[in-house]
Amino acid sequence: MENKITKLKSLLADAYDLSNVAALLSWDEQTKMPPGGAEARSYQMAAVSRLAHEKFTSDEIGRLLEDLQVYENQLDPDTDEARLLHITRRDYNKRIRVPSTLVSEFARVTAAAHTTWVVARQQSDFGKLRPDLERIVALRREYASLFAPYDHIYDPLFDDYEPGMKTAEVRQIFDRIRPQQVALVHAIAERPQVEDAFLHKPFDEQKQENITVDVITRFGFDWKRGRQDRSAHPFTTSFSPGDVRLTTRFLPDSGISALFSSMHECGHALYEQGINPAYARTPLGQPPSMALHESQSRLWENLVGAPYDFWVYYYPRFQETFSTQLGNVDLEAFYKAVNKSEPSPIRVEADEATYNLHIMLRLELEIALMEGKLEVRDLPEAWNERMREYLGITPANDAQGVLQDVHWSGGSIGYFATYALGNIISVQIWERILSEIPDLPAQIRRGEFASLRAWLEERIHRFGGKYEPQELVQRVTGSRIDPEPYLRYLRTKFGEIYAL
Amino acid sequence: MENKITKLKSLLADAYDLSNVAALLSWDEQTKMPPGGAEARSYQMAAVSRLAHEKFTSDEIGRLLEDLQVYENQLDPDTDEARLLHITRRDYNKRIRVPSTLVSEFARVTAAAHTTWVVARQQSDFGKLRPDLERIVALRREYASLFAPYDHIYDPLFDDYEPGMKTAEVRQIFDRIRPQQVALVHAIAERPQVEDAFLHKPFDEQKQENITVDVITRFGFDWKRGRQDRSAHPFTTSFSPGDVRLTTRFLPDSGISALFSSMHECGHALYEQGINPAYARTPLGQPPSMALHESQSRLWENLVGAPYDFWVYYYPRFQETFSTQLGNVDLEAFYKAVNKSEPSPIRVEADEATYNLHIMLRLELEIALMEGKLEVRDLPEAWNERMREYLGITPANDAQGVLQDVHWSGGSIGYFATYALGNIISVQIWERILSEIPDLPAQIRRGEFASLRAWLEERIHRFGGKYEPQELVQRVTGSRIDPEPYLRYLRTKFGEIYAL
Repeated sequence: MENKITKLKSLLADAYDLSNVAALLSWDEQTKMPPGGAEARSYQMAAVSRLAHEKFTSDEIGRLLEDLQVYENQLDPDTDEARLLHITRRDYNKRIRVPSTLVSEFARVTAAAHTTWVVARQQSDFGKLRPDLERIVALRREYASLFAPYDHIYDPLFDDYEPGMKTAEVRQIFDRIRPQQVALVHAIAERPQVEDAFLHKPFDEQKQENITVDVITRFGFDWKRGRQDRSAHPFTTSFSPGDVRLTTRFLPDSGISALFSSMHECGHALYEQGINPAYARTPLGQPPSMALHESQSRLWENLVGAPYDFWVYYYPRFQETFSTQLGNVDLEAFYKAVNKSEPSPIRVEADEATYNLHIMLRLELEIALMEGKLEVRDLPEAWNERMREYLGITPANDAQGVLQDVHWSGGSIGYFATYALGNIISVQIWERILSEIPDLPAQIRRGEFASLRAWLEERIHRFGGKYEPQELVQRVTGSRIDPEPYLRYLRTKFGEIYAL
Repeated sequence: MENKITKLKSLLADAYDLSNVAALLSWDEQTKMPPGGAEARSYQMAAVSRLAHEKFTSDEIGRLLEDLQVYENQLDPDTDEARLLHITRRDYNKRIRVPSTLVSEFARVTAAAHTTWVVARQQSDFGKLRPDLERIVALRREYASLFAPYDHIYDPLFDDYEPGMKTAEVRQIFDRIRPQQVALVHAIAERPQVEDAFLHKPFDEQKQENITVDVITRFGFDWKRGRQDRSAHPFTTSFSPGDVRLTTRFLPDSGISALFSSMHECGHALYEQGINPAYARTPLGQPPSMALHESQSRLWENLVGAPYDFWVYYYPRFQETFSTQLGNVDLEAFYKAVNKSEPSPIRVEADEATYNLHIMLRLELEIALMEGKLEVRDLPEAWNERMREYLGITPANDAQGVLQDVHWSGGSIGYFATYALGNIISVQIWERILSEIPDLPAQIRRGEFASLRAWLEERIHRFGGKYEPQELVQRVTGSRIDPEPYLRYLRTKFGEIYAL
């Protein structure tokens, strides 16, 4: 059995090496590749994705999993070995249903579509992206159909990002939070608005970048095992625990957007850097789900980086760096401006009170696309309608609307809901942390993040993908995913800022 | 037969997609990868290199080449199809001898050794690199032995970079130029030395970088199909005709090193960008040999960028940019400083009179290593001895000596001689160009490079790897590789500068 485990690990390592190569191809495409490279890149992505898939779904791995079934049942289910077998078997059983031709076609189409999206967004021309998107939706429907019968055609897609969770379950959670968030947004709208014009001026990019570097270094990002670049859409990726890369972006009319992007992505990056290196090149080498991943990015962005405590420490430096823009702005005013809530068209710039509404909009559109109730050509109009309905605003153009996000051109249909779940989990975790490190707010006021970082690594990061998502949430917070702490948190935070 | 050709091209495309992915892994390692990524990268390189090798040497390609042999013999030998079959067959017959385990082991070891080299060079500690280098030399000997019987054990290695050329042939050429270059170096040493202290001061890096961008844009580099980055050792790589990347580097004590690196690498890049896109993803998609490749980099660096004509046009801008350093330096003095000849330890910084001596030193050491007459542990001493013998200088340390170049840690034993051959060919081509575009020097004085670029693309670049190296040299210059024009050129150039 020892030999079979070793053999299995070696075959998994081969497959994950190729997956990590595909991740590099994608990182490069989004950060460095010149436009002329797009066509060749789409072939390269197709070739590598297909080979990674074939390696992972090989007959040999199938046979080893079969041979090891009895052995696995005898293991203490909490050991790394038992978990490796369990998670590998779960993923194998899912991926084995997918023909490698579909994998390579999907990789080719989405790699090419990324470049199309960049141009379409620049020109705010949805028509440019439409044919690619129609192909992607068709490929996603074909993919989902491989898993029939299912409760819902969206389930197999969602399960790729949030293993084990069903569409019905996330809808239930969203139904609970939607009315409360809508009510909160309405309540805020009736109060005098916070002043934030001083944030929306030109801020020197180099100085902004230096600040992002300073802050994520304080958070604990290890530059020997990672880097930060720029991309149209901020993201984080990992090719090994020793090579974790985040990106940020600079907006011409914002002094804090890049910093908050970097803090967000740094949360993802700290997770990846904190995973037990022994799990590298196995299915345990990544977080258990995208919601868990997002819980970490939102924790550092919203629960560490946005609150008053952080700025008590950091605002004097920030103000000194941008004395022209902020010389006359006091900490209280700055804090409120950073946390201003107002319906706006761009999800990644949305405040916490409105953010989940952006997610719900996308989830509904994705479900309608998968059900065949919505055509790609009708997406821009459907998008704008829901923006009016949920947020009371109409995007000025498609770049500010349906084209804003990278996900659909990248084929990531099924992903968005995990963002809202990440918000919810982040507050569950935060409550637990505060109960165990009551001094944390005081530490943050002193610019100290080490005990927070250590807690997260010890309780969450190092386990990588060892546990199922809900199992990990349960272990860490004592309950399953529960929206109540998040709703309480929103009411308290915005209740104070807007004197509700 | 049509079907078989189509099938062959499709299989070759699959193999070249993976080769291009390996090239990206290497580019990223040299330009972007954090040190912590080294171990995982070595596995990734091994996996992709092995798969590329297996694809290219598949039984299916072997059978198709066999089936197409008679058909090939009936084709006009100058057609693309005949050439594709010829070059594919040549490469297939060579690579089929190499077991894929050796390919992956070599890729793994050299990927890891690159990171070791970076550290060893930083710390000037040859001992750090020695174990990796011993393994690499052993693997190269094992590789060469696969091609026995051979005239010389170095032949199979050299042939990888310069197909069809033998060690004996390059030695014969080197024996012809060595005494003449040594005599020239001695003659220069007896003359008053040119003043160049004004070049060896701090020059602002950002301004230097802007100048590199300006110059290579004028040369015709297409930024939509490429980019420039920084690396410890400048190089150029291509993942498709639409994605050609060069690197440069900035030295703290030189105002022109980065510019000349960029002009050099731009020569390589223009070659890659100029190849017929129809040859992409086939063995015709790259230049026929490294000497031909180098002929283009040296042409732009030495025959365009170094002469007086270029600086008549460019010096006023350059002087304005760096008025602090160069305000009092006139064009004549600047031109001479740029072309100063003096023995120095670093090859890539060497002037044209001494450059080939650096190459001969490396060729002799490589041959001795392959013959087993020199041990890796004795390399630093052997290096320094020959430096004293050829150039009359002793490197201050190993970073300035045996550790200076990236090639050996990358496994590129067999490569160096092509640099000297590139010098030789560049002047053969230049003489031909001047006979066909007599007005070229006047164009360059006006900052016009378009007709030169067009000539090179028309006569050389677009053919990619369609011709054997010597065949292409013959077509372009009317003779085989011939050192006489180069020797004449050196005598004339340095005769004028040093009034010999």
